[in-house]
Amino acid sequence: MYTLHIANKNYSSWSLRPWILFRELHIPFAEYSHPFNQDHGRQQSEFAVFSPTSCVPVLEDGGTTIWDSLAIVEYVAEEHPEVWPEDKKARAWARSACAEMHAGFSALRSECGMNCSLRVDLHSRSEALQAELARLDRLFCDGLSRFGGLFLAGSRFTAVDAFFAPVVFRVRTYDLELSELSSEYVQHMLELRGMRAWYEAALQETARLPMYEDKSRVGQIIQDYRN
Amino acid sequence: MYTLHIANKNYSSWSLRPWILFRELHIPFAEYSHPFNQDHGRQQSEFAVFSPTSCVPVLEDGGTTIWDSLAIVEYVAEEHPEVWPEDKKARAWARSACAEMHAGFSALRSECGMNCSLRVDLHSRSEALQAELARLDRLFCDGLSRFGGLFLAGSRFTAVDAFFAPVVFRVRTYDLELSELSSEYVQHMLELRGMRAWYEAALQETARLPMYEDKSRVGQIIQDYRN
Ligand SMILES: N[C@@H](CCC(=O)N[C@@H](CS)C(=O)NCC(=O)O)C(=O)O
Ligand SMILES: N[C@@H](CCC(=O)N[C@@H](CS)C(=O)NCC(=O)O)C(=O)O
Repeated sequence: MYTLHIANKNYSSWSLRPWILFRELHIPFAEYSHPFNQDHGRQQSEFAVFSPTSCVPVLEDGGTTIWDSLAIVEYVAEEHPEVWPEDKKARAWARSACAEMHAGFSALRSECGMNCSLRVDLHSRSEALQAELARLDRLFCDGLSRFGGLFLAGSRFTAVDAFFAPVVFRVRTYDLELSELSSEYVQHMLELRGMRAWYEAALQETARLPMYEDKSRVGQIIQDYRN
Repeated sequence: MYTLHIANKNYSSWSLRPWILFRELHIPFAEYSHPFNQDHGRQQSEFAVFSPTSCVPVLEDGGTTIWDSLAIVEYVAEEHPEVWPEDKKARAWARSACAEMHAGFSALRSECGMNCSLRVDLHSRSEALQAELARLDRLFCDGLSRFGGLFLAGSRFTAVDAFFAPVVFRVRTYDLELSELSSEYVQHMLELRGMRAWYEAALQETARLPMYEDKSRVGQIIQDYRN
C-alpha cells in the first residue's frame, strides 16, 4: 500500500495534487499529515526524517521514496495507467500542461498562495499575474474544447486535473476572473467529492501560520470559513 | 521523425535537456533553431507560431505538439524506454530528481544563468544559492553512490543526466564548488560527445543578448571563449 506524506490541507498546494488523484481514482493509500511549523529550521529537520528535500508530498512504496508530486504521478501511473488519458494525443497534452504548471506560474503561486478557507479581495493584479491568468484561461479552454469533456483532457479526471486542483481553490479564494468555459470547469472541480473532502478537512484545521495567513501585501481578507 | 525546436545553444538551458537526451541515446530528430530576441514582445510572437507558451523547447511529432522539456522526456520514453533507467527503484529516483530540478533550484537559475562560453568569478554566494548547491551535491552523491555508476542513476546516460546537463555547464562557468565525487561526475559529463558538440556550437554563435551577457550583478567575467 502507498503511504503519502502531506502537510496542512488548508495551505499545502503541492500535497493536494497526489492526494486528490488517489481519491478521485480510488487508488488506496495511507495518509500521514505533518503540520508545517512556523520555525522553518525546525520544520526542515522534522520533514527531513521522511523527505530528502524536507518538502512534501512524499510517497513511500515498500522501500522506495518518491519525493516530488510530478514524479509521484508518473510512478503511480506505471501501475495505474488510468492516471493519464488513454488517448496518446490527450496524454501528450496532459503531460505538457502538468509540466508547465510544475515549473511555471510563479506569480500566481507567490501572489495568490493557497489558503482554501479564505476569501480575499486583491488590491490589484500585477502584470505578471494577469499574463499568467490569461495563459491559464487559454490552457483550460484549449483542453476543454479540444477533448470535449468535463475535465481538462477528456471525460475522466486524470493527473492534469489533479495538477490544477490547487489553482481551482486559488481561483475561488482570490475571485480570479476566467472565461465562462473555464469558470464552469472550476465550478465542476469544486463539486467533486474529493475536493469537498479536502476543503472540509482544511476548515477543521486549527493551525494559523502567519506566513500563509497574512494577506495584507496582496489584498484584504473578506471572509474566513474556519471557526 | 521528431522535430525539436530550440533556441541559442549558448543560453537556452531548457533546450539542452531534450537535445542532449536525443543525442546521447541516438534518437533521430530534426533540429530547428529560433534565436532569442532582445525585444521580448517580438520574441513572444515569433515563438508563438510553434509554441503555445512562446517558450522552447517544443517537440513536434506528426500532428502532436509537446511544449515542455519534462513532458517531452516522458512522451519520448513511451517509444524509447531507455530514456529512463531499467530498474524500477532507479527510475523512481531519476524521476524524483528530474521533477525536483524542474520546479526548484531557483537561486541557481537566477544567479547563475547558463552562458556556456563564459567563465565568471562570482562576487559571493547568496544563502539561497549555498543551500541549493549543498542540496545539489547531496543529490549527485546519493545517485552516484546508490546506483554505483558513472551516471546519476546507473551506468547509462538517462533523462536525469539530461536534466542536470545545464547545471553541469553552470558549475564550470561559475566555478561552483562540489565534493570530489560530484566534481568527477561533472567532468565526465563535460567530456561526453554530445556535451562537447553543444558547447562547440555555442561558441560559434554570434548573438550577444545583454540580458544573458551582463554578469555585473553576480560577478565578474574573467574569460569568454567565443571569438
Ligand atoms: N517540487 C516539489 C515541491 C514541494 C514543495 O515545495 N512543498 C512545500 C509544501 S506545499 C514544502 O514542503 N515547503 C516546505 C519548505 O519549503 O520548507 C513537489 O512538487 O513535490
Ligand atoms: N517548463 C518549460 C520552460 C521553458 C522555458 O522557460 N524556456 C525559456 C528558454 S531557456 C524560454 O523559452 N524563454 C523565453 C521567454 O520566456 O520568453 C520547459 O521545461 O520546457
